[in-house]
This record gives sequence, structure tokens and C-alpha cells, in this order.
Amino acid sequence: MTVTQPKGFRAAGVAAGIKAEGKLDLALVVNDGPLQVAAGVFTRNVIKAAPVLWSQEVLKQQRLKAVVLNSGGANAATGPGGFQDTHQTAEKVAGLFEAGAIEVAVCSTGLIGERLPMDALLSGVDTAFERLGTGDEADLAAATAVMTTDTKPKQAAAKHESGWSVGGFAKGAGMLAPNLATMLSVLTTDAVVTPEVLDKALRAATGVTFDRLDVDGGTSTNDTVLVLASGASGVEPTEAELTELLTTVSLDLVLQLRADSEGATKYVDVTVTGAVSEADAIAVGRTIAEDNLVKTALFGSDPNWGRIAMALGRVPAEIDPEKVAIAINGVTLFAKGTTAADRSEADLSGRDIQIVVDLGLGEGGATIYTTDLSHAYVEENSAYSS
Amino acid sequence: MTVTQPKGFRAAGVAAGIKAEGKLDLALVVNDGPLQVAAGVFTRNVIKAAPVLWSQEVLKQQRLKAVVLNSGGANAATGPGGFQDTHQTAEKVAGLFEAGAIEVAVCSTGLIGERLPMDALLSGVDTAFERLGTGDEADLAAATAVMTTDTKPKQAAAKHESGWSVGGFAKGAGMLAPNLATMLSVLTTDAVVTPEVLDKALRAATGVTFDRLDVDGGTSTNDTVLVLASGASGVEPTEAELTELLTTVSLDLVLQLRADSEGATKYVDVTVTGAVSEADAIAVGRTIAEDNLVKTALFGSDPNWGRIAMALGRVPAEIDPEKVAIAINGVTLFAKGTTAADRSEADLSGRDIQIVVDLGLGEGGATIYTTDLSHAYVEENSAYSS
Repeated sequence: MTVTQPKGFRAAGVAAGIKAEGKLDLALVVNDGPLQVAAGVFTRNVIKAAPVLWSQEVLKQQRLKAVVLNSGGANAATGPGGFQDTHQTAEKVAGLFEAGAIEVAVCSTGLIGERLPMDALLSGVDTAFERLGTGDEADLAAATAVMTTDTKPKQAAAKHESGWSVGGFAKGAGMLAPNLATMLSVLTTDAVVTPEVLDKALRAATGVTFDRLDVDGGTSTNDTVLVLASGASGVEPTEAELTELLTTVSLDLVLQLRADSEGATKYVDVTVTGAVSEADAIAVGRTIAEDNLVKTALFGSDPNWGRIAMALGRVPAEIDPEKVAIAINGVTLFAKGTTAADRSEADLSGRDIQIVVDLGLGEGGATIYTTDLSHAYVEENSAYSS
Repeated sequence: MTVTQPKGFRAAGVAAGIKAEGKLDLALVVNDGPLQVAAGVFTRNVIKAAPVLWSQEVLKQQRLKAVVLNSGGANAATGPGGFQDTHQTAEKVAGLFEAGAIEVAVCSTGLIGERLPMDALLSGVDTAFERLGTGDEADLAAATAVMTTDTKPKQAAAKHESGWSVGGFAKGAGMLAPNLATMLSVLTTDAVVTPEVLDKALRAATGVTFDRLDVDGGTSTNDTVLVLASGASGVEPTEAELTELLTTVSLDLVLQLRADSEGATKYVDVTVTGAVSEADAIAVGRTIAEDNLVKTALFGSDPNWGRIAMALGRVPAEIDPEKVAIAINGVTLFAKGTTAADRSEADLSGRDIQIVVDLGLGEGGATIYTTDLSHAYVEENSAYSS
């Protein structure tokens, strides 16, 4: 079990008819308590979809009874009408639980700029309500209903020895999916936790996991990660324990998202150490991870450290070229301003690639999770007509 | 004529044997005066090649007798030995003109991390000195000798009605070339000009031309644009006149660089208007120009304004989503926060694409010159073993 492994949660996934193909396209996750604590992090894109604007507002209450998610339409750039559709969806779900709309978060993913088929969506909510349950089947249905260009559902869960757990599902990844861009994730826990601790733990966990997945630099209009806490385990972990388990489950989901990214033939960890700050380490790691000349070299299994040096050299961060060391798959190829070893000594024939850049200046470090840039990426992102 | 169209200049291009294939690989441009005023702009990459470090230093004198350029090796990340090679090259050229090494700029382009074959290079300087001349043949030889992955030489010139002119050549473009990354350009003019005016005019011209070409966000370790003024026309233009003609020739070269960029099937102008500042306009234009989802959509002739909206929404600039308007090839597809027209109304079947983003906030504007992201780009950047 995943999203319903923590006690106090039920889930469902149904085919509401939002997608033409009759695929699963609507998911519902319900928190039966006793607690209904919640927290969320959202896209930093200034162009936000209606469901993001709505869910950001309701999360200010730090409590959620339910989350309703749909694929088949992002409800982004849809104007006031689109926001009305989101509000109506929340009202519909709230009515089924004698709750207020303000206790219901809404997530949407799909094409930008088109209104949702509300009749289909609202009747789908009724169907999902009837099918709410726990166990592998319910978890899989919910995780599948949010998929867009994902080829497989992403689920994860972890149990703490003291008897509480964290579970959840995710779809997409940044703007990794060709058009249906959004990264959505719903996490659940039966830990006893205050809203303040849950919020801090979620931000700490996503800060080193979801925020560090960068395939093409994209940031969706709909990106959302929500965590719901039921308290049903009766156990109250420390903030550190909660952060650790949320991080474990989030990283599991992030690596599943990377593994399913269109066209990826290499899974690349870009680790930056020795930066004067974590912010500098992240900036350097992201620039290397997003650089098309680095990504195409990796696709060609070419340990082209010159491109990595070029990329990091253009980052507005504190860098001393004489102190930079670049290692690929364990072989230091560049150090002290010049070649340290022949590039042929680094073997990139495998699927997993470790790039380690030591700036040699301080204690700041970060790892960015990315992929190569392949023919398939170009094909799927250009051929996909939207 | 191009680089030798302005009076007072001679040029040559020879095969020094730096490149294995026996291709032209060394160019020499000489200023016979009477003036020897010069200015230069260089890469902002913190990892700078030896010739860039050298030429930045000599340009502080604001005068140059000659520029020597080589392809076949960037002399970057080559340590103190590489800097010695550059110094020795400048000394060699200076000796031929009874000048000081400080009057000779050096430019190199090619693979990063390898020392240059100095015997071949220095004897090539002698050959180039003997072949110095004016006219189309000399201009073409010089423009060809700096080519790396360029498929054709880039040359341009323009004459002012008052009898002075600007000419020059260029190669590469940012990190547009797959490995041999550098953008180099040498411009000449026979205008009578002070060092201060020449420097200001060059920065103004490159600021809206070479600085606005962005195919993949790359910044080479060797990028250099030099301008040499001989004063041989006897005419002293105003700063505005000089800036205008330098800009005309620079833009001509920039559009030739874009047209020759590997794998490009679309030539895309991203124009941002209505920004609160020019800096914001440039930041938004660059982010759109570098976005792989935008670039792959354009490769697929898909007017996917949703991806443009996503890209601009992640720029750290002042943006009000309700005031943004996005037009592609003259058709406004997004305005007032929602769809303005069906994307099918925009025809992207042609080679040239105009994207105009109006932020609707202020007077800041800028145009970034870019391309699409094609299979050929991936192929040439991954297959090219370095």
C-alpha cells in the first residue's frame, strides 16, 4: 500500500470522461482523521493555474478533508470561468463530507488554455466517492488517474519503527512531460503533528527532492505537492523524524519521475560540493543539469568535461577556476585550471552517471537529479501536437 | 571586400598545420594606420582561455597593431604553459612589425584542454606575414582560417556616405557550435576615432547584436569581439554614426552565425516589449529562447503558446499575467490571462518565426535571436566525439 498505507486515509481513481479515451482521469484522497492537518508547496511560476490559486488559498487554513485531482486538463490560462470551475469542484467534494469547500484542495493537469468538461468531472466525483477504499487497488487507481504522458504510475511508502508511516503518489516532473507538464504529488501520514511542524517538514523534504529534479528547467503552471496528516497512528514523531521519512518517500517518487522521463537514456546526478553557499551549489548544479551541450554529450556517452567547465563558468556564483575540480563517474578530469586525466578514463557507457563538481571554496553542497538530452526527447516534444 | 574594405588594413589566412587536415587554421589582421586605436569585448565566463586573458590585458592600452587568430585549439584550461604559448605567439607577431607584444591581440578557437603545436603555429605566422594583402581573396582566407564547425565563412561590410567604412568577419556563435564553441569576430574601420568613442560604440553595437544571439545559452571560454580603427579615411564620424554602422555590420554577422548554426531548421526572433526595464526584457527573451519545450515545439511547427507562457512565468522579472500578450507570426494567441485565438491561426510552416511577447508594463524592450531545437542539433552535439 502507498497513499492509503498510513491509517485514516481512503482513495479512489475513476474514469470521469474528462479524457476522451475513457482512461482513469479523476482521483480522490480523503482524510478520515482524527486530525486533518495539511500543508502544501506550489509552483513558483507567476502564471498559476486556477486550481493552484484555489489550493494555495485553502492551505492557509492548514487543514484538508480531501484532495480531488484530475488529468485531461490543466485549467490554466482559463480566466475567471476556470477559477469558477475549480471552486465548483471543491464545493461538490465538500458536500459529500458535510465539509466546507475551504477544506478541499484541487489539482489539475493536462493541456493549458482549455476549460474542463464540468458535467463529466462532477459526476466523476460522485463515482469516486462511492469507490473510496484502502489497499493496493485503490492506491493504484488514484496514482493512475493523475497520469498524463507518464508511462507508469509512481507510488511510494515508508514505515517508521515507532509505528507511523508516510505514503503517496506523484505524476509528471517539472516541465519534463512534453506538454502535460505538471508535477503533482499527494503525500499522506498518520503521524500526530502540528500544522507548523508539518509545513516545516514538507518544505525541508521537498527542498532536497522535488525541488532538485531538473530535466529541462521547466516550471509548470500547476506544480503542487500536498501532505495530509491524520494522526491515526497516535504517534507524534520529532520534526527531524518526520522530515526524514517525508524525504525518503519524496526522493523515491522523484527518482521514479526521472526514470519515466520521456526520451531519457541516462540518469544523471549532478553533485556540487565546496560552494560558498547551498544557493551557489544549487545554481551551479542546475546550470550544468540544464545545459544542452552537457546533456547531448552525456547522450553520446562522451565525458566532455570542457562543456561542464563552460557551463559552470557562466553561473553567477562565487567560483575560482583554479580551485574547481570536475569528476565524472569517479575520475577527476579537470583540476587546478587544467586537464587532470584523459577523458577516455571515464566510462559513461552505463545508464547511471555521477558528475561531481568541487568548487573548493566552502561547505555548500547540493545534488540535482537530471537526464541526458536525446533524440527521443526532441521527437516526443515536437511530434506531440498540442 | 570585408575586413580589408576599410583603408589601412591587410589580412591573410594560411594553413599552419595546427589542424590535422591541412585546412586554413591561422589568420592575421594588420592595422597599418595612421591610427592604431582598438577596443574589445570578451566572454563573461569566469573560466577564460589564455588568449582571452592576454588580449584583455593588452586592450587596456586601447591600441593594436595586429590580431593573430588560430583555429584547431582553444588554448583553454591549459594552465601557465598555455599562457606562455599565447605570449610567445604575440611576441612572434610583434617582431615582424617592430612592435611590442602588447600591441598584438591573440584569439584561439578549438578543443578545450589541449596545448597548441607551437612550432607549426609560429612558422604559420611567418607564412601569413608574407601573404598579407587586401581584397576579396585575403578577406576570404582570413575568415575561413578561423572556422571550426562553421560550414561557411561569415563576412560583412558597410560604407558610410561620408567615405569611411566598417568591415569584418566572425565564426561560431556562443556555445552554438557543438564543441569548438567560441564566437570570435574581428571588425575594422578606417574612421578617425578616439579610444573612448570606439570602446563605447563597440559596447553599444555588440550589446544589441552579438550579446542577443542565444541558441543554447552557452558562453564560451574564448568569446572575443575586437574592433581596430586605422583613421585612414581621414573622416571622423559622430559616436552615433559609428555605433550605427558597427551595429549594422555586427547584426549582419550575427544573422549569418544563426543561419549556420548546427541543426537549426527555424530562425526565431523573440521580441519582448512592455517590460519595466531592458534588463527584464532581455531576461524574458533569453529564457524563452533557451527553453527546450519552446524550441522543440517550434521544430514541430507547433504554435504552443502555453510553453511560452510557462517559460516567461519562471523568469525573475516583473510580470503581471493579466497584462501579458503572446503573438506568434502576427497572431495574438494569449492575452488578458486566457486564450485569445486558436493556435491553428498561427502558421509556423515557414523557416522564419517571430515571437512577440508584450508584458504590458513599461517601455523596456529587446530582441533575442535564436533557433529551434532539432534532431540534427542532438545528433551533431552528441556524435561529435571530443
